[in-house]
Amino acid sequence: MYRTHTCGELSIDHAGQAVTLSGWVQRSRDLGGMTFIDLRDRYGVTQLVFNMDVRPELCQQARHLGREYVLSVRGVVAERSNKNSRISTGDIEIVVESFVVLNKAALPPFTIEDDTDGGDDLRMKYRYLDLRRSVVRKNLELRHRLAQEVRRYLDEQQFLEVETPVLMKSTPEGARDFVVPSRMNPGQFYALPQSPQTFKQILMVAGFDRYFQIVKCFRDEDLRADRQPEFTQIDCEMSFVEQEDILQTFEGLIRHLFLKVRGVTFAEPFRRMSFAEAMSTYGNDKPDLRFDMKIRDLSALVRGRGFGAFDQAEFIGAVVAPGCADYTRKQLDELTEWVKRPQIGASGLVFVRCQADGSHKSSVDKFYSGEDLSVWAQTCGAVPGDLILVLAGMRRKTLPQLSELRLEMGSRLGLRDKNVFVPLWVVDFPLLEWSEEDQRFYAMHHPFTAPKSEDIALLDTNPGAVRANAYDCVVNGVELGGGSIRIHDDQLQKKMFHTLGFTPEQAEYQFGFLMNAFRFGAPPHGGIAFGFDRLVSMLAGLDSIRDVIAFPKNNSGRDVMIDSPSYISEDQLKELRIKTDFRPEKID
Amino acid sequence: MYRTHTCGELSIDHAGQAVTLSGWVQRSRDLGGMTFIDLRDRYGVTQLVFNMDVRPELCQQARHLGREYVLSVRGVVAERSNKNSRISTGDIEIVVESFVVLNKAALPPFTIEDDTDGGDDLRMKYRYLDLRRSVVRKNLELRHRLAQEVRRYLDEQQFLEVETPVLMKSTPEGARDFVVPSRMNPGQFYALPQSPQTFKQILMVAGFDRYFQIVKCFRDEDLRADRQPEFTQIDCEMSFVEQEDILQTFEGLIRHLFLKVRGVTFAEPFRRMSFAEAMSTYGNDKPDLRFDMKIRDLSALVRGRGFGAFDQAEFIGAVVAPGCADYTRKQLDELTEWVKRPQIGASGLVFVRCQADGSHKSSVDKFYSGEDLSVWAQTCGAVPGDLILVLAGMRRKTLPQLSELRLEMGSRLGLRDKNVFVPLWVVDFPLLEWSEEDQRFYAMHHPFTAPKSEDIALLDTNPGAVRANAYDCVVNGVELGGGSIRIHDDQLQKKMFHTLGFTPEQAEYQFGFLMNAFRFGAPPHGGIAFGFDRLVSMLAGLDSIRDVIAFPKNNSGRDVMIDSPSYISEDQLKELRIKTDFRPEKID
Repeated sequence: MYRTHTCGELSIDHAGQAVTLSGWVQRSRDLGGMTFIDLRDRYGVTQLVFNMDVRPELCQQARHLGREYVLSVRGVVAERSNKNSRISTGDIEIVVESFVVLNKAALPPFTIEDDTDGGDDLRMKYRYLDLRRSVVRKNLELRHRLAQEVRRYLDEQQFLEVETPVLMKSTPEGARDFVVPSRMNPGQFYALPQSPQTFKQILMVAGFDRYFQIVKCFRDEDLRADRQPEFTQIDCEMSFVEQEDILQTFEGLIRHLFLKVRGVTFAEPFRRMSFAEAMSTYGNDKPDLRFDMKIRDLSALVRGRGFGAFDQAEFIGAVVAPGCADYTRKQLDELTEWVKRPQIGASGLVFVRCQADGSHKSSVDKFYSGEDLSVWAQTCGAVPGDLILVLAGMRRKTLPQLSELRLEMGSRLGLRDKNVFVPLWVVDFPLLEWSEEDQRFYAMHHPFTAPKSEDIALLDTNPGAVRANAYDCVVNGVELGGGSIRIHDDQLQKKMFHTLGFTPEQAEYQFGFLMNAFRFGAPPHGGIAFGFDRLVSMLAGLDSIRDVIAFPKNNSGRDVMIDSPSYISEDQLKELRIKTDFRPEKID
Repeated sequence: MYRTHTCGELSIDHAGQAVTLSGWVQRSRDLGGMTFIDLRDRYGVTQLVFNMDVRPELCQQARHLGREYVLSVRGVVAERSNKNSRISTGDIEIVVESFVVLNKAALPPFTIEDDTDGGDDLRMKYRYLDLRRSVVRKNLELRHRLAQEVRRYLDEQQFLEVETPVLMKSTPEGARDFVVPSRMNPGQFYALPQSPQTFKQILMVAGFDRYFQIVKCFRDEDLRADRQPEFTQIDCEMSFVEQEDILQTFEGLIRHLFLKVRGVTFAEPFRRMSFAEAMSTYGNDKPDLRFDMKIRDLSALVRGRGFGAFDQAEFIGAVVAPGCADYTRKQLDELTEWVKRPQIGASGLVFVRCQADGSHKSSVDKFYSGEDLSVWAQTCGAVPGDLILVLAGMRRKTLPQLSELRLEMGSRLGLRDKNVFVPLWVVDFPLLEWSEEDQRFYAMHHPFTAPKSEDIALLDTNPGAVRANAYDCVVNGVELGGGSIRIHDDQLQKKMFHTLGFTPEQAEYQFGFLMNAFRFGAPPHGGIAFGFDRLVSMLAGLDSIRDVIAFPKNNSGRDVMIDSPSYISEDQLKELRIKTDFRPEKID
């Protein structure tokens, strides 16, 4: 037997007991007469003590144990003279009577401590060592707990967990598919699911009523910092529901998770906001409501005074930075540079200082009187001590720029506390988005989203104005999930494909099975999917999803630990009947 | 609101209440003055009643509702005069006041009843209709419950659920991999996991101590009736354990599942049997212990009497069919034909009737006296009334043939009751298997299985004799799961790859990350994986895994419902830098 207890459970109550522990050498201290070793496992750290006077030979051996050696230790639990209140086992130590080295360890390439000296690349290459660090492991323990709680809640709500296929069918609408050549069907390919969307709808047609799955999804996209080619969704669908039923059910889920995992209670019902309001007030369809700082439209107020940048702008908007009137020239220059960075793309920044004496001072005093600025301040709700920041340009570019500026000022002013959570439902999304580049409409969510019934007539006359029964769940400016009521009528679904520029043949080849299913009694249905990685990351207080994934891939889609993707053999290619010109001369 | 209640919850307690139900028309009966409709949803069936005298117009409309129409119905709960005790809602009916047709339904291609007239192909093509049948849905509900119970048990045992990558690395040892071309790494491929074996071992090196996952795995094999290209495993691994710890833990899991899902309690500890004993006694490494009928070795007893078939045989063995002494000549001929079928492959069948008077009558009376046969019967433990069935040939062929014969006789004699469950651990598997065809050793389980420490020396001298710390969990002759203690030493792992014929370079290219990980303090560890589909299928009392999978593929690996795999566009192929000659002229 390798152990009687773990390294995290012994206390003063066990004093005098003979025990066996197994674990890793976290660190050792040789004090001459005494040698102390901290033995670590997943459950905690326990101090081992070796006494030169009592067991000189054993103590000698203990002195040669390196970091990360794996030991099994027999000894007796004793009360510690120097208690350590920071760890649960801090009252005791093990007086070691014998030990076995179960495995040696080479010197780790970085220290296995909460604060490590390992860079990102090194930590990913040796992910198994990185995962030994308790800060990293705790994120994955949180992920485990969250997954159990998601299932518990949905199970109690009579949702059925159903596994949908991973080997699916390529439907290029949306992001790029990962595909899998079929050996038994030469020339043909499976695709990995971007989401189980069509299958969960099929389950509703099948009468399953309530479905969920915590499921891997796949997108072959060029990876930004916080995207992964494989990611995990909490995927849900319900029948005989309207939007309100879904919002209620999943508001319940989110409340349950925040309560169980973080002890956070939301007193009020989640706020609701239309897409239109979110865009005009926060410049963003996922506003961070931990702080106010709304965008104010100054367009009507400031034009026609000879200031070209405003006169020629479609839209002029402002945000108010509270208490920032005393920003120095240098600070304002830096902020101006910040908004002009290509990532933001503003052409310049106009500011108005609301001074303590009630007067206003701006960077455009040449064009606007003190009285003018006073009206601006009033319109913006700015008070003495505040700083008004104004951007101008095309509406569809300036609003997002103001959003970025707002978030940046929120961060600088400490208004975005990671321990405060403000949830929000964004509703009434447009059904379609016009692409200037492709000169066609795309589905804003996906082609299965139902238009609001009162807007269906607009599909023929003004498709861009059609609103969808679609909703996003946003917390602290992060989209945690989104969904919609679906189309359940085959004729409306056909019309939708037509609006999206599918030929009837394309629609049939790709989605014929779904439209066919709708002919046999499809119930009204709708659903939602939450980004599980993102949810864990938010509850763990992290900025990136990478640290809540056990084995993430890098920005080139590579797993640097196992060194994948990799070349496969000629035999494999031949069997699959595919060829590639990108192969080195010699592989094995 | 579409409903106030489901179709499965109303009882006499609700009499007089106004309710709204939604569901599908299961069937309707027009009795002239009254029309009855059974409305179905996932939760049950509720009778709707329309009275021609009271609401003639509504009743008229109801008469035109077809099977599988989707309705939302408002009405009042009333006590039924003709109660139906077979369904939970059988005491009541709904006196309908109004209804809405939510969706029409075309005539289904087969009847949606427990006994359907739909053949397999039709049911798979219209799987969404097949899944409406309660017998099919109940299997998936059982699967859901089982998954929840697996997680509950393992969570309580401090196992952490960790998601391992689906986009992995191709390691052709074992079955064929499904591969995924990487767009960002041209010419290179990911592979879908045949199991997360290496990752779960890495998690042990990372100190995760106890891991589990209910996870999709993939094998590109030519599909037999009961195989699927994607299947689901309960995958588990533990650190600081010996074989005994694992058997105890997972015996606990299996007990928990059988109790919670089937109400079955196993009184005794699971029996243990060595691989060697299983093979010699049952001719099979997964014996069905619901019945006895052991294989008896008659080799020493029967040779040298001039009967060529026995004299030249390496092995002569028998099974005893109890109470079958009165088999007719015709029955025995049929049984002889049965063992000679190519699937069994025996060259003939010798029988001995143990007659009521204590005498014996055999098909080889010419060579053996009554006394001889009496000794056979004694050796076999046969009593008057029994039939002894004897096969002869090469040991490694005859034992499996006797196993097949034993199982067949068990079935014919009704000894394999689906409601009786007899669990068993098969242990002490050989580490390696010799392939005559390839003239090399293969790992019997996989290359990471640890040899028994006392057998390690044999690796150099007699590899075929090395036993592994490997075990299978068998219930009723079905292998539900299997696993092993793993190698955790990089030198032993290297030696193992060498024994399996890997060059050092191949071992390094494919598994270098694992051997490297072992250098940094790998703990002793081991694990097990259960076939989840098979487990559900056994608990559901089914013979095939297909009916416990929501969307199974057929024997060509096709999903006939969505018609996948399918051709992808030239653009997709070009982006992936792969080519295939197997493409039709025109696709879209």
